[in-house]
Amino acid sequence: MSDMTLEHAQAVIEAARRVAEEINTAMNIAVVDEGANLTAFIRMDGAWLGSLDIAIKKARTARFFDMESGDLGELSQPGGPLYNIEVSNGGLISFPGGIPLTIEGKIVGAIGVSGSTVDNDRRVARAGAAALAMV
Amino acid sequence: MSDMTLEHAQAVIEAARRVAEEINTAMNIAVVDEGANLTAFIRMDGAWLGSLDIAIKKARTARFFDMESGDLGELSQPGGPLYNIEVSNGGLISFPGGIPLTIEGKIVGAIGVSGSTVDNDRRVARAGAAALAMV
Amino acid sequence: MSDMTLEHAQAVIEAARRVAEEINTAMNIAVVDEGANLTAFIRMDGAWLGSLDIAIKKARTARFFDMESGDLGELSQPGGPLYNIEVSNGGLISFPGGIPLTIEGKIVGAIGVSGSTVDNDRRVARAGAAALAMV
Amino acid sequence: MSDMTLEHAQAVIEAARRVAEEINTAMNIAVVDEGANLTAFIRMDGAWLGSLDIAIKKARTARFFDMESGDLGELSQPGGPLYNIEVSNGGLISFPGGIPLTIEGKIVGAIGVSGSTVDNDRRVARAGAAALAMV
Repeated sequence: MSDMTLEHAQAVIEAARRVAEEINTAMNIAVVDEGANLTAFIRMDGAWLGSLDIAIKKARTARFFDMESGDLGELSQPGGPLYNIEVSNGGLISFPGGIPLTIEGKIVGAIGVSGSTVDNDRRVARAGAAALAMV
Repeated sequence: MSDMTLEHAQAVIEAARRVAEEINTAMNIAVVDEGANLTAFIRMDGAWLGSLDIAIKKARTARFFDMESGDLGELSQPGGPLYNIEVSNGGLISFPGGIPLTIEGKIVGAIGVSGSTVDNDRRVARAGAAALAMV
Repeated sequence: MSDMTLEHAQAVIEAARRVAEEINTAMNIAVVDEGANLTAFIRMDGAWLGSLDIAIKKARTARFFDMESGDLGELSQPGGPLYNIEVSNGGLISFPGGIPLTIEGKIVGAIGVSGSTVDNDRRVARAGAAALAMV
Repeated sequence: MSDMTLEHAQAVIEAARRVAEEINTAMNIAVVDEGANLTAFIRMDGAWLGSLDIAIKKARTARFFDMESGDLGELSQPGGPLYNIEVSNGGLISFPGGIPLTIEGKIVGAIGVSGSTVDNDRRVARAGAAALAMV
Protein backbone atom coordinates (compact mmCIF):
# COMPACT_ATOMS: atom_id res chain seq x y z
CA MET A 1 0.00 0.00 0.00
CA SER A 2 1.45 3.35 -0.99
CA ASP A 3 -1.07 6.18 -0.84
CA MET A 4 -0.73 8.86 1.80
CA THR A 5 -3.80 9.27 3.97
CA LEU A 6 -4.79 12.30 6.02
CA GLU A 7 -3.78 10.27 9.06
CA HIS A 8 -0.28 9.98 7.58
CA ALA A 9 -0.15 13.68 6.79
CA GLN A 10 -1.20 14.62 10.30
CA ALA A 11 1.39 12.28 11.78
CA VAL A 12 4.02 13.99 9.63
CA ILE A 13 2.88 17.43 10.77
CA GLU A 14 2.73 16.38 14.41
CA ALA A 15 6.26 14.95 14.32
CA ALA A 16 7.51 18.12 12.67
CA ARG A 17 5.77 20.31 15.20
CA ARG A 18 7.27 18.45 18.14
CA VAL A 19 10.75 19.22 16.86
CA ALA A 20 9.79 22.81 16.07
CA GLU A 21 8.74 23.24 19.70
CA GLU A 22 11.86 21.49 20.99
CA ILE A 23 14.08 23.98 19.19
CA ASN A 24 11.83 26.85 20.19
CA THR A 25 10.63 27.92 16.75
CA ALA A 26 7.20 28.83 15.35
CA MET A 27 6.73 27.14 12.00
CA ASN A 28 4.29 26.95 9.13
CA ILE A 29 4.08 23.26 8.16
CA ALA A 30 2.43 21.99 4.97
CA VAL A 31 1.95 18.53 3.49
CA VAL A 32 0.99 17.95 -0.14
CA ASP A 33 -0.01 14.70 -1.78
CA GLU A 34 1.18 12.88 -4.88
CA GLY A 35 -0.62 15.46 -7.05
CA ALA A 36 1.14 18.31 -5.22
CA ASN A 37 -2.18 19.40 -3.72
CA LEU A 38 -2.43 20.53 -0.10
CA THR A 39 -3.43 17.75 2.29
CA ALA A 40 -2.86 19.32 5.70
CA PHE A 41 -1.42 22.54 7.08
CA ILE A 42 -0.78 24.29 10.38
CA ARG A 43 0.58 27.72 11.30
CA MET A 44 2.02 27.64 14.82
CA ASP A 45 1.16 30.60 17.07
CA GLY A 46 3.36 33.56 16.26
CA ALA A 47 4.81 32.06 13.07
CA TRP A 48 5.73 34.53 10.33
CA LEU A 49 2.73 35.30 8.19
CA GLY A 50 4.88 35.33 5.04
CA SER A 51 6.03 31.79 5.73
CA LEU A 52 2.53 30.43 5.16
CA ASP A 53 2.85 30.66 1.40
CA ILE A 54 6.51 29.63 1.50
CA ALA A 55 5.81 26.42 3.44
CA ILE A 56 3.21 25.39 0.88
CA LYS A 57 5.48 26.33 -2.03
CA LYS A 58 8.40 24.37 -0.54
CA ALA A 59 6.23 21.28 -0.31
CA ARG A 60 4.97 21.73 -3.85
CA THR A 61 8.49 22.34 -5.15
CA ALA A 62 9.77 19.15 -3.51
CA ARG A 63 6.99 17.09 -5.09
CA PHE A 64 7.14 18.86 -8.47
CA PHE A 65 10.72 17.67 -8.95
CA ASP A 66 10.93 14.81 -6.43
CA MET A 67 13.93 16.31 -4.70
CA GLU A 68 14.63 18.47 -1.67
CA SER A 69 13.79 22.10 -2.42
CA GLY A 70 17.32 23.14 -1.51
CA ASP A 71 18.78 20.82 -4.14
CA LEU A 72 16.84 22.67 -6.80
CA GLY A 73 18.30 25.94 -5.51
CA GLU A 74 21.79 24.73 -6.31
CA LEU A 75 20.78 24.54 -9.97
CA SER A 76 18.84 27.81 -10.16
CA GLN A 77 21.61 30.27 -9.29
CA PRO A 78 22.87 32.85 -11.79
CA GLY A 79 24.78 30.96 -14.49
CA GLY A 80 23.27 27.65 -13.42
CA PRO A 81 21.30 25.29 -15.66
CA LEU A 82 17.90 26.13 -14.11
CA TYR A 83 18.47 29.85 -13.56
CA ASN A 84 15.33 31.52 -12.16
CA ILE A 85 13.17 28.42 -12.40
CA GLU A 86 11.46 29.90 -9.34
CA VAL A 87 9.06 31.96 -11.48
CA SER A 88 7.42 28.81 -12.87
CA ASN A 89 4.46 26.89 -11.46
CA GLY A 90 3.00 29.93 -9.76
CA GLY A 91 6.20 30.36 -7.78
CA LEU A 92 8.74 27.83 -6.52
CA ILE A 93 10.86 28.05 -3.36
CA SER A 94 14.31 26.63 -3.97
CA PHE A 95 15.95 26.93 -0.57
CA PRO A 96 15.85 24.17 2.09
CA GLY A 97 12.72 23.10 3.94
CA GLY A 98 10.85 21.10 1.30
CA ILE A 99 11.33 17.32 1.33
CA PRO A 100 9.61 14.47 -0.57
CA LEU A 101 7.60 12.02 1.53
CA THR A 102 7.91 8.32 0.84
CA ILE A 103 6.09 5.16 1.81
CA GLU A 104 7.97 1.95 1.14
CA GLY A 105 10.34 3.87 -1.11
CA LYS A 106 7.64 5.39 -3.30
CA ILE A 107 7.16 9.17 -3.28
CA VAL A 108 3.63 9.95 -2.12
CA GLY A 109 3.90 13.69 -1.51
CA ALA A 110 6.08 16.22 0.26
CA ILE A 111 6.42 18.33 3.38
CA GLY A 112 7.32 22.03 3.43
CA VAL A 113 8.41 23.95 6.53
CA SER A 114 9.08 27.67 6.90
CA GLY A 115 9.47 30.00 9.86
CA SER A 116 13.07 30.07 11.04
CA THR A 117 16.55 29.72 9.54
CA VAL A 118 16.73 27.37 6.58
CA ASP A 119 18.75 24.98 8.71
CA ASN A 120 15.96 24.85 11.27
CA ASP A 121 13.31 24.64 8.56
CA ARG A 122 15.08 21.64 7.02
CA ARG A 123 15.60 19.99 10.40
CA VAL A 124 11.92 20.21 11.20
CA ALA A 125 10.94 19.03 7.73
CA ARG A 126 13.21 16.03 8.05
CA ALA A 127 11.62 15.10 11.36
CA GLY A 128 8.26 15.14 9.62
CA ALA A 129 9.49 13.08 6.69
CA ALA A 130 11.08 10.55 9.03
CA ALA A 131 7.74 9.93 10.73
CA LEU A 132 6.24 8.77 7.46
CA ALA A 133 9.25 6.74 6.38
CA MET A 134 8.68 4.62 9.51
CA VAL A 135 5.10 3.77 8.53
CA MET B 1 -8.54 36.93 25.71
CA SER B 2 -9.73 37.03 22.14
CA ASP B 3 -7.09 35.80 19.68
CA MET B 4 -7.50 32.43 18.02
CA THR B 5 -4.63 30.03 18.66
CA LEU B 6 -3.63 27.03 16.59
CA GLU B 7 -5.10 24.89 19.38
CA HIS B 8 -8.44 26.61 18.83
CA ALA B 9 -8.21 26.16 15.07
CA GLN B 10 -7.45 22.47 15.41
CA ALA B 11 -10.35 21.98 17.82
CA VAL B 12 -12.62 23.63 15.26
CA ILE B 13 -11.33 21.35 12.50
CA GLU B 14 -11.61 18.24 14.65
CA ALA B 15 -15.23 19.02 15.62
CA ALA B 16 -16.07 19.61 11.98
CA ARG B 17 -14.41 16.40 10.90
CA ARG B 18 -16.30 14.33 13.44
CA VAL B 19 -19.59 15.49 11.97
CA ALA B 20 -18.29 15.01 8.43
CA GLU B 21 -17.55 11.40 9.27
CA GLU B 22 -20.90 10.90 11.02
CA ILE B 23 -22.74 11.93 7.87
CA ASN B 24 -20.36 9.91 5.73
CA THR B 25 -18.79 12.73 3.73
CA ALA B 26 -15.19 13.58 2.77
CA MET B 27 -14.54 17.26 3.33
CA ASN B 28 -11.88 19.90 2.87
CA ILE B 29 -11.86 21.99 6.05
CA ALA B 30 -10.02 25.32 6.37
CA VAL B 31 -9.64 27.82 9.21
CA VAL B 32 -8.41 31.39 8.67
CA ASP B 33 -7.51 33.96 11.30
CA GLU B 34 -8.62 37.54 11.87
CA GLY B 35 -6.50 38.72 8.94
CA ALA B 36 -8.08 36.07 6.67
CA ASN B 37 -4.80 34.14 6.53
CA LEU B 38 -4.82 30.32 6.64
CA THR B 39 -4.25 28.89 10.13
CA ALA B 40 -5.03 25.20 9.67
CA PHE B 41 -6.35 22.90 6.96
CA ILE B 42 -7.18 19.27 6.30
CA ARG B 43 -8.37 17.36 3.25
CA MET B 44 -10.13 14.17 4.27
CA ASP B 45 -9.27 11.02 2.33
CA GLY B 46 -11.14 10.94 -0.97
CA ALA B 47 -12.37 14.53 -0.74
CA TRP B 48 -12.87 16.35 -4.05
CA LEU B 49 -9.63 17.95 -5.13
CA GLY B 50 -11.45 21.00 -6.44
CA SER B 51 -12.96 21.59 -3.04
CA LEU B 52 -9.56 22.37 -1.56
CA ASP B 53 -9.51 25.89 -2.99
CA ILE B 54 -13.23 26.34 -2.35
CA ALA B 55 -12.94 25.52 1.34
CA ILE B 56 -10.20 28.11 1.76
CA LYS B 57 -12.13 30.70 -0.27
CA LYS B 58 -15.30 30.07 1.78
CA ALA B 59 -13.39 30.72 4.98
CA ARG B 60 -11.82 33.87 3.56
CA THR B 61 -15.18 35.08 2.25
CA ALA B 62 -16.82 34.63 5.66
CA ARG B 63 -14.09 36.64 7.36
CA PHE B 64 -13.90 39.25 4.60
CA PHE B 65 -17.52 40.24 5.22
CA ASP B 66 -18.11 38.83 8.70
CA MET B 67 -21.11 36.82 7.54
CA GLU B 68 -21.90 33.31 6.38
CA SER B 69 -20.74 32.83 2.81
CA GLY B 70 -24.23 31.76 1.78
CA ASP B 71 -25.69 35.04 3.01
CA LEU B 72 -23.44 36.87 0.59
CA GLY B 73 -24.70 34.62 -2.20
CA GLU B 74 -28.25 35.79 -1.66
CA LEU B 75 -27.10 39.30 -2.54
CA SER B 76 -24.87 38.44 -5.49
CA GLN B 77 -27.41 36.82 -7.80
CA PRO B 78 -28.29 38.31 -11.21
CA GLY B 79 -30.26 41.47 -10.54
CA GLY B 80 -29.13 41.52 -6.91
CA PRO B 81 -27.26 44.37 -5.24
CA LEU B 82 -23.90 42.58 -5.16
CA TYR B 83 -24.05 40.81 -8.53
CA ASN B 84 -20.76 39.09 -9.39
CA ILE B 85 -18.96 40.24 -6.25
CA GLU B 86 -17.27 36.84 -6.54
CA VAL B 87 -14.58 38.19 -8.87
CA SER B 88 -13.13 40.35 -6.08
CA ASN B 89 -10.46 39.47 -3.54
CA GLY B 90 -8.85 36.88 -5.75
CA GLY B 91 -12.11 34.93 -5.90
CA LEU B 92 -14.94 34.64 -3.38
CA ILE B 93 -17.24 31.67 -2.83
CA SER B 94 -20.75 32.84 -2.04
CA PHE B 95 -22.61 29.61 -1.41
CA PRO B 96 -22.96 28.01 2.04
CA GLY B 97 -20.09 26.49 3.99
CA GLY B 98 -18.15 29.52 5.23
CA ILE B 99 -18.91 30.75 8.76
CA PRO B 100 -17.25 33.37 11.00
CA LEU B 101 -15.60 32.10 14.17
CA THR B 102 -16.09 33.98 17.41
CA ILE B 103 -14.56 34.00 20.87
CA GLU B 104 -16.56 35.81 23.52
CA GLY B 105 -18.61 37.40 20.77
CA LYS B 106 -15.65 38.83 18.87
CA ILE B 107 -14.92 37.56 15.36
CA VAL B 108 -11.46 36.00 15.33
CA GLY B 109 -11.50 34.22 11.96
CA ALA B 110 -13.65 31.83 9.95
CA ILE B 111 -14.11 28.21 8.92
CA GLY B 112 -14.73 27.03 5.37
CA VAL B 113 -15.95 23.54 4.43
CA SER B 114 -16.36 22.02 0.96
CA GLY B 115 -16.83 18.49 -0.32
CA SER B 116 -20.49 17.55 -0.35
CA THR B 117 -23.85 19.26 -0.83
CA VAL B 118 -23.94 22.83 0.38
CA ASP B 119 -26.34 21.73 3.12
CA ASN B 120 -23.81 19.21 4.34
CA ASP B 121 -20.95 21.68 3.94
CA ARG B 122 -22.81 24.20 6.10
CA ARG B 123 -23.74 21.59 8.68
CA VAL B 124 -20.13 20.55 9.09
CA ALA B 125 -18.94 24.17 9.20
CA ARG B 126 -21.46 24.98 11.90
CA ALA B 127 -20.24 22.07 14.00
CA GLY B 128 -16.74 23.50 13.75
CA ALA B 129 -17.87 27.01 14.63
CA ALA B 130 -19.85 25.73 17.60
CA ALA B 131 -16.72 24.12 19.06
CA LEU B 132 -15.02 27.49 19.26
CA ALA B 133 -18.05 29.35 20.57
CA MET B 134 -17.90 27.10 23.62
CA VAL B 135 -14.33 28.13 24.45
CA MET C 1 -6.09 73.13 -15.13
CA SER C 2 -7.42 69.59 -15.04
CA ASP C 3 -5.10 67.14 -13.32
CA MET C 4 -6.05 65.63 -9.99
CA THR C 5 -3.46 66.19 -7.27
CA LEU C 6 -3.01 64.21 -4.08
CA GLU C 7 -4.53 67.20 -2.29
CA HIS C 8 -7.65 66.78 -4.41
CA ALA C 9 -7.76 63.04 -3.77
CA GLN C 10 -7.45 63.54 -0.03
CA ALA C 11 -10.21 66.17 -0.05
CA VAL C 12 -12.41 63.67 -1.88
CA ILE C 13 -11.66 60.97 0.68
CA GLU C 14 -12.17 63.31 3.61
CA ALA C 15 -15.55 64.46 2.30
CA ALA C 16 -16.58 60.86 1.76
CA ARG C 17 -15.47 59.87 5.21
CA ARG C 18 -17.42 62.62 6.88
CA VAL C 19 -20.62 61.31 5.34
CA ALA C 20 -19.66 57.73 6.17
CA GLU C 21 -19.36 58.74 9.80
CA GLU C 22 -22.59 60.72 9.72
CA ILE C 23 -24.51 57.66 8.59
CA ASN C 24 -22.60 55.46 11.02
CA THR C 25 -20.82 53.21 8.54
CA ALA C 26 -17.22 51.98 8.29
CA MET C 27 -16.04 52.28 4.70
CA ASN C 28 -13.10 51.49 2.50
CA ILE C 29 -12.55 54.54 0.28
CA ALA C 30 -10.26 54.57 -2.77
CA VAL C 31 -9.36 57.24 -5.33
CA VAL C 32 -7.70 56.43 -8.64
CA ASP C 33 -6.28 58.87 -11.16
CA GLU C 34 -6.77 59.34 -14.89
CA GLY C 35 -4.69 56.20 -15.54
CA ALA C 36 -6.88 54.19 -13.13
CA ASN C 37 -3.95 53.86 -10.72
CA LEU C 38 -4.46 54.19 -6.97
CA THR C 39 -3.83 57.71 -5.66
CA ALA C 40 -5.13 57.52 -2.10
CA PHE C 41 -6.92 55.02 0.10
CA ILE C 42 -8.25 54.61 3.62
CA ARG C 43 -9.90 51.74 5.48
CA MET C 44 -11.99 53.08 8.35
CA ASP C 45 -11.70 51.23 11.68
CA GLY C 46 -13.81 48.09 11.64
CA ALA C 47 -14.55 48.22 7.91
CA TRP C 48 -15.03 44.88 6.18
CA LEU C 49 -11.70 43.46 5.11
CA GLY C 50 -13.19 42.18 1.85
CA SER C 51 -14.32 45.66 0.93
CA LEU C 52 -10.73 46.82 0.58
CA ASP C 53 -10.32 45.19 -2.82
CA ILE C 54 -13.89 46.04 -3.82
CA ALA C 55 -13.46 49.76 -3.14
CA ILE C 56 -10.37 49.85 -5.34
CA LYS C 57 -12.06 47.79 -8.07
CA LYS C 58 -15.13 50.06 -8.03
CA ALA C 59 -12.94 53.10 -8.56
CA ARG C 60 -11.03 51.40 -11.36
CA THR C 61 -14.26 50.20 -12.99
CA ALA C 62 -15.70 53.72 -12.95
CA ARG C 63 -12.60 55.14 -14.62
CA PHE C 64 -12.16 52.23 -17.03
CA PHE C 65 -15.53 53.02 -18.60
CA ASP C 66 -16.10 56.61 -17.45
CA MET C 67 -19.44 55.74 -15.90
CA GLU C 68 -20.80 54.86 -12.48
CA SER C 69 -19.98 51.26 -11.63
CA GLY C 70 -23.66 50.51 -11.10
CA ASP C 71 -24.49 51.60 -14.64
CA LEU C 72 -22.13 48.96 -15.96
CA GLY C 73 -23.94 46.38 -13.84
CA GLU C 74 -27.17 47.04 -15.70
CA LEU C 75 -25.46 45.88 -18.89
CA SER C 76 -23.66 42.86 -17.47
CA GLN C 77 -26.62 40.80 -16.29
CA PRO C 78 -27.47 37.42 -17.84
CA GLY C 79 -28.76 38.08 -21.35
CA GLY C 80 -27.34 41.62 -21.33
CA PRO C 81 -24.90 43.02 -23.88
CA LEU C 82 -21.89 42.95 -21.49
CA TYR C 83 -22.69 39.72 -19.71
CA ASN C 84 -19.98 38.80 -17.19
CA ILE C 85 -17.67 41.66 -18.16
CA GLU C 86 -16.64 41.51 -14.48
CA VAL C 87 -13.98 38.90 -15.20
CA SER C 88 -11.97 41.35 -17.33
CA ASN C 89 -9.26 43.76 -16.20
CA GLY C 90 -8.28 41.64 -13.24
CA GLY C 91 -11.82 41.87 -11.87
CA LEU C 92 -14.45 44.60 -12.19
CA ILE C 93 -17.15 45.50 -9.68
CA SER C 94 -20.37 46.46 -11.42
CA PHE C 95 -22.63 47.40 -8.54
CA PRO C 96 -22.95 50.96 -7.16
CA GLY C 97 -20.21 52.78 -5.28
CA GLY C 98 -17.77 53.70 -8.07
CA ILE C 99 -18.10 57.19 -9.56
CA PRO C 100 -15.94 59.16 -12.01
CA LEU C 101 -14.27 62.29 -10.65
CA THR C 102 -14.30 65.45 -12.75
CA ILE C 103 -12.58 68.82 -12.69
CA GLU C 104 -14.17 71.46 -14.89
CA GLY C 105 -16.13 68.74 -16.63
CA LYS C 106 -13.11 66.61 -17.52
CA ILE C 107 -12.80 63.14 -16.00
CA VAL C 108 -9.60 62.99 -13.97
CA GLY C 109 -10.11 59.74 -12.06
CA ALA C 110 -12.70 58.00 -9.92
CA ILE C 111 -13.72 57.21 -6.35
CA GLY C 112 -14.75 53.77 -5.09
CA VAL C 113 -16.50 53.11 -1.78
CA SER C 114 -17.37 49.79 -0.16
CA GLY C 115 -18.42 48.74 3.32
CA SER C 116 -22.19 48.98 3.71
CA THR C 117 -25.28 48.60 1.53
CA VAL C 118 -24.79 49.66 -2.05
CA ASP C 119 -27.10 52.61 -1.41
CA ASN C 120 -24.87 53.79 1.40
CA ASP C 121 -21.74 53.07 -0.63
CA ARG C 122 -23.05 55.20 -3.49
CA ARG C 123 -24.16 57.98 -1.16
CA VAL C 124 -20.69 58.20 0.36
CA ALA C 125 -19.02 58.02 -3.05
CA ARG C 126 -21.20 60.85 -4.33
CA ALA C 127 -20.25 63.00 -1.37
CA GLY C 128 -16.60 62.45 -2.28
CA ALA C 129 -17.17 63.19 -5.95
CA ALA C 130 -19.10 66.37 -5.10
CA ALA C 131 -16.13 67.69 -3.14
CA LEU C 132 -13.97 67.59 -6.25
CA ALA C 133 -16.62 68.95 -8.57
CA MET C 134 -16.62 72.11 -6.45
CA VAL C 135 -12.88 72.67 -6.95
CA MET D 1 -4.14 49.01 23.78
CA SER D 2 -2.25 47.63 20.83
CA ASP D 3 -4.29 47.73 17.61
CA MET D 4 -3.46 50.22 14.91
CA THR D 5 -6.31 52.56 14.04
CA LEU D 6 -6.77 54.54 10.83
CA GLU D 7 -5.79 57.61 12.83
CA HIS D 8 -2.48 55.94 13.63
CA ALA D 9 -1.96 54.94 10.02
CA GLN D 10 -2.63 58.44 8.78
CA ALA D 11 -0.24 59.92 11.35
CA VAL D 12 2.42 57.51 10.08
CA ILE D 13 1.79 58.54 6.49
CA GLU D 14 1.75 62.24 7.31
CA ALA D 15 5.07 62.01 9.18
CA ALA D 16 6.59 60.13 6.27
CA ARG D 17 5.31 62.63 3.76
CA ARG D 18 6.75 65.56 5.64
CA VAL D 19 10.20 64.07 5.38
CA ALA D 20 9.64 63.13 1.75
CA GLU D 21 8.89 66.78 1.01
CA GLU D 22 11.85 68.00 3.06
CA ILE D 23 14.23 65.94 0.95
CA ASN D 24 12.40 66.90 -2.22
CA THR D 25 11.14 63.47 -3.26
CA ALA D 26 7.77 62.20 -4.50
CA MET D 27 6.89 58.98 -2.73
CA ASN D 28 4.26 56.27 -2.68
CA ILE D 29 3.53 55.52 0.99
CA ALA D 30 1.53 52.50 2.18
CA VAL D 31 0.52 51.24 5.62
CA VAL D 32 -0.71 47.68 6.23
CA ASP D 33 -2.22 46.26 9.41
CA GLU D 34 -1.37 43.21 11.49
CA GLY D 35 -2.93 40.93 8.86
CA ALA D 36 -0.82 42.59 6.11
CA ASN D 37 -3.94 44.20 4.63
CA LEU D 38 -3.81 47.77 3.29
CA THR D 39 -4.98 50.38 5.80
CA ALA D 40 -3.99 53.67 4.15
CA PHE D 41 -2.07 54.81 1.08
CA ILE D 42 -1.00 57.97 -0.72
CA ARG D 43 0.85 58.64 -3.96
CA MET D 44 2.49 62.04 -3.91
CA ASP D 45 2.15 64.17 -7.03
CA GLY D 46 4.63 63.09 -9.66
CA ALA D 47 5.66 59.89 -7.88
CA TRP D 48 6.70 56.98 -10.10
CA LEU D 49 3.68 54.96 -11.09
CA GLY D 50 5.60 51.71 -10.77
CA SER D 51 6.39 52.51 -7.17
CA LEU D 52 2.74 52.20 -6.19
CA ASP D 53 2.84 48.42 -6.17
CA ILE D 54 6.34 48.40 -4.71
CA ALA D 55 5.36 50.53 -1.73
CA ILE D 56 2.50 48.18 -0.90
CA LYS D 57 4.69 45.10 -1.39
CA LYS D 58 7.43 46.57 0.83
CA ALA D 59 4.91 47.11 3.61
CA ARG D 60 3.53 43.61 3.22
CA THR D 61 7.02 42.11 3.13
CA ALA D 62 7.99 43.88 6.36
CA ARG D 63 4.91 42.54 8.12
CA PHE D 64 5.14 39.09 6.58
CA PHE D 65 8.53 38.55 8.22
CA ASP D 66 8.49 41.20 10.97
CA MET D 67 11.73 42.72 9.74
CA GLU D 68 12.87 45.56 7.51
CA SER D 69 12.44 44.62 3.86
CA GLY D 70 16.10 45.34 3.21
CA ASP D 71 17.18 42.83 5.84
CA LEU D 72 15.37 40.14 3.89
CA GLY D 73 17.22 41.21 0.77
CA GLU D 74 20.55 40.48 2.40
CA LEU D 75 19.46 36.84 2.69
CA SER D 76 17.88 36.45 -0.75
CA GLN D 77 20.90 37.18 -2.95
CA PRO D 78 22.35 34.55 -5.29
CA GLY D 79 24.03 31.95 -3.12
CA GLY D 80 22.22 33.22 -0.04
CA PRO D 81 19.95 31.13 2.19
CA LEU D 82 16.69 32.70 0.93
CA TYR D 83 17.59 33.08 -2.75
CA ASN D 84 14.60 34.22 -4.83
CA ILE D 85 12.17 34.28 -1.90
CA GLU D 86 10.71 37.26 -3.77
CA VAL D 87 8.48 35.01 -5.91
CA SER D 88 6.43 34.02 -2.85
CA ASN D 89 3.36 35.69 -1.38
CA GLY D 90 2.29 37.20 -4.69
CA GLY D 91 5.60 39.06 -4.91
CA LEU D 92 7.90 40.38 -2.20
CA ILE D 93 10.16 43.43 -2.36
CA SER D 94 13.40 42.78 -0.52
CA PHE D 95 15.24 46.08 -0.82
CA PRO D 96 14.96 48.87 1.78
CA GLY D 97 11.82 50.92 2.42
CA GLY D 98 9.56 48.49 4.31
CA ILE D 99 9.58 48.71 8.12
CA PRO D 100 7.42 47.06 10.80
CA LEU D 101 5.22 49.38 12.87
CA THR D 102 5.02 48.88 16.62
CA ILE D 103 2.83 50.11 19.46
CA GLU D 104 4.24 49.51 22.92
CA GLY D 105 6.72 47.08 21.42
CA LYS D 106 4.10 44.92 19.67
CA ILE D 107 4.13 44.74 15.87
CA VAL D 108 0.79 46.04 14.58
CA GLY D 109 1.56 46.42 10.89
CA ALA D 110 4.16 47.95 8.58
CA ILE D 111 4.95 50.93 6.37
CA GLY D 112 6.29 50.73 2.82
CA VAL D 113 7.80 53.63 0.89
CA SER D 114 8.94 53.75 -2.73
CA GLY D 115 9.78 56.56 -5.13
CA SER D 116 13.41 57.56 -4.81
CA THR D 117 16.74 55.91 -3.96
CA VAL D 118 16.44 53.08 -1.48
CA ASP D 119 18.30 55.22 1.05
CA ASN D 120 15.68 57.92 0.71
CA ASP D 121 12.88 55.38 0.73
CA ARG D 122 14.16 53.92 3.99
CA ARG D 123 14.70 57.35 5.53
CA VAL D 124 11.10 58.31 4.81
CA ALA D 125 9.77 54.97 6.04
CA ARG D 126 11.70 55.34 9.28
CA ALA D 127 10.21 58.77 9.84
CA GLY D 128 6.77 57.23 9.48
CA ALA D 129 7.56 54.35 11.81
CA ALA D 130 8.98 56.74 14.41
CA ALA D 131 5.69 58.66 14.50
CA LEU D 132 3.84 55.55 15.64
CA ALA D 133 6.50 54.44 18.10
CA MET D 134 5.86 57.69 19.99
CA VAL D 135 2.14 56.92 20.43
